[in-house]
Amino acid sequence: MVLVATRNPLNIGAAARAMANFGFSRLCAVNPYDAAFREARSAVGAAPLLQSAAQCGSVAEAVAGAGLVVGTTSVGHRELQHPLRRLEYGARVIRRRLQNAPVALLFGSEKFGLSNEDLSHCHWLMRIPTVRQDLSMNLGQAVALCLYELARDPAAVSARPERSKPANAGETEQIVRLLLDALRSSGYINPVTATSTEEKVRRLVLRLRISAHDAPVLLGMLRQILWKLENGPERGV
Amino acid sequence: MVLVATRNPLNIGAAARAMANFGFSRLCAVNPYDAAFREARSAVGAAPLLQSAAQCGSVAEAVAGAGLVVGTTSVGHRELQHPLRRLEYGARVIRRRLQNAPVALLFGSEKFGLSNEDLSHCHWLMRIPTVRQDLSMNLGQAVALCLYELARDPAAVSARPERSKPANAGETEQIVRLLLDALRSSGYINPVTATSTEEKVRRLVLRLRISAHDAPVLLGMLRQILWKLENGPERGV
Repeated sequence: MVLVATRNPLNIGAAARAMANFGFSRLCAVNPYDAAFREARSAVGAAPLLQSAAQCGSVAEAVAGAGLVVGTTSVGHRELQHPLRRLEYGARVIRRRLQNAPVALLFGSEKFGLSNEDLSHCHWLMRIPTVRQDLSMNLGQAVALCLYELARDPAAVSARPERSKPANAGETEQIVRLLLDALRSSGYINPVTATSTEEKVRRLVLRLRISAHDAPVLLGMLRQILWKLENGPERGV
Repeated sequence: MVLVATRNPLNIGAAARAMANFGFSRLCAVNPYDAAFREARSAVGAAPLLQSAAQCGSVAEAVAGAGLVVGTTSVGHRELQHPLRRLEYGARVIRRRLQNAPVALLFGSEKFGLSNEDLSHCHWLMRIPTVRQDLSMNLGQAVALCLYELARDPAAVSARPERSKPANAGETEQIVRLLLDALRSSGYINPVTATSTEEKVRRLVLRLRISAHDAPVLLGMLRQILWKLENGPERGV
């Protein structure tokens, strides 16, 4: 992970945190704007990683040990003479290469990205598939996305069957409220533990995965029960 | 996108920026710590989205219109009574649901995540597969990852890179010839092994996979070098 000419130390810290999140460890800052980047408080849980980060005077020095050098770019405004790969595909290629040799992944400065000189060190470029090519990503977020995709387990996506159309949250909450009213009215709820009971009941109702079809039926049942609870059996005239 | 009890307005801004990056538009802040979140400078390119964000007093209000409510969680320290899905899988389920009804995706506060009360509104939970379960992600980065995965095009993994057009065989062979002339002229080639050297050079040049764009540049370089080799340095009168 090579951060070139990063201006904001918080972004270096955020990058370090994302590296810790996804199991990467070698960070190099090339000409950071603020030399105090090692103190970044945004590096929650990644202080050792930030302390051991290398600081280099040039991209050439930073990537010297890498078998593959990949630059990141957000937008297509530059005259690109490099092959450009989408993150999903590029990450696969990088994962394969990492089995044999170190790979350097370059991120440019917040404002300008990688310079043409920086780019000339790259074998190819990778872009994050945002919907608006004119709007770049925040640096810390871009780093997190790339590392997430690199650490991705393709097998984690596996299909499961669909279910019937669910009741929406508003209808479900109505059922929760009526049921709680009925439980209160019937003396089921102990006032001392009322809050925890309310949460238990809501979770229970959500686990039922009530369908849009069943919701009004249940509401009708509960309304009737509640009416009876509140008006009492003696009223039977 | 529902942000619950977010403390730092910069994180709300970063979330808004990621929403703009990946084409999402409906943001709701539930009890934000700092009511000035709409001014967040971190919402580069997403100021209108932030301006039109809803502010709600409760999770119930925020998710009322949703057909599915999904909570995010980074770590497993909580007693979870909800089904827990990995992001890669959960995002697929959400994508399918979005075809029929709105889905609410909940993110808790930076320090504490979602409370048990918040969680009781969720149908299931989703976690980002970080390597260290004890180390949570930065909120803005977590939001970016989830939206990236939601916007993911499964076909992109196998998409071919946007490759540059290769030089054709004729151009490549011209480069081989000029290079061989230069090597001969400079005394690199041993006449005894000339044939094998020629084949080695040709294979090497082919492995370079020179692009149509670069071929004439290389030819120009080689012509100039060859000219200098044949006319010698002493000629500079």
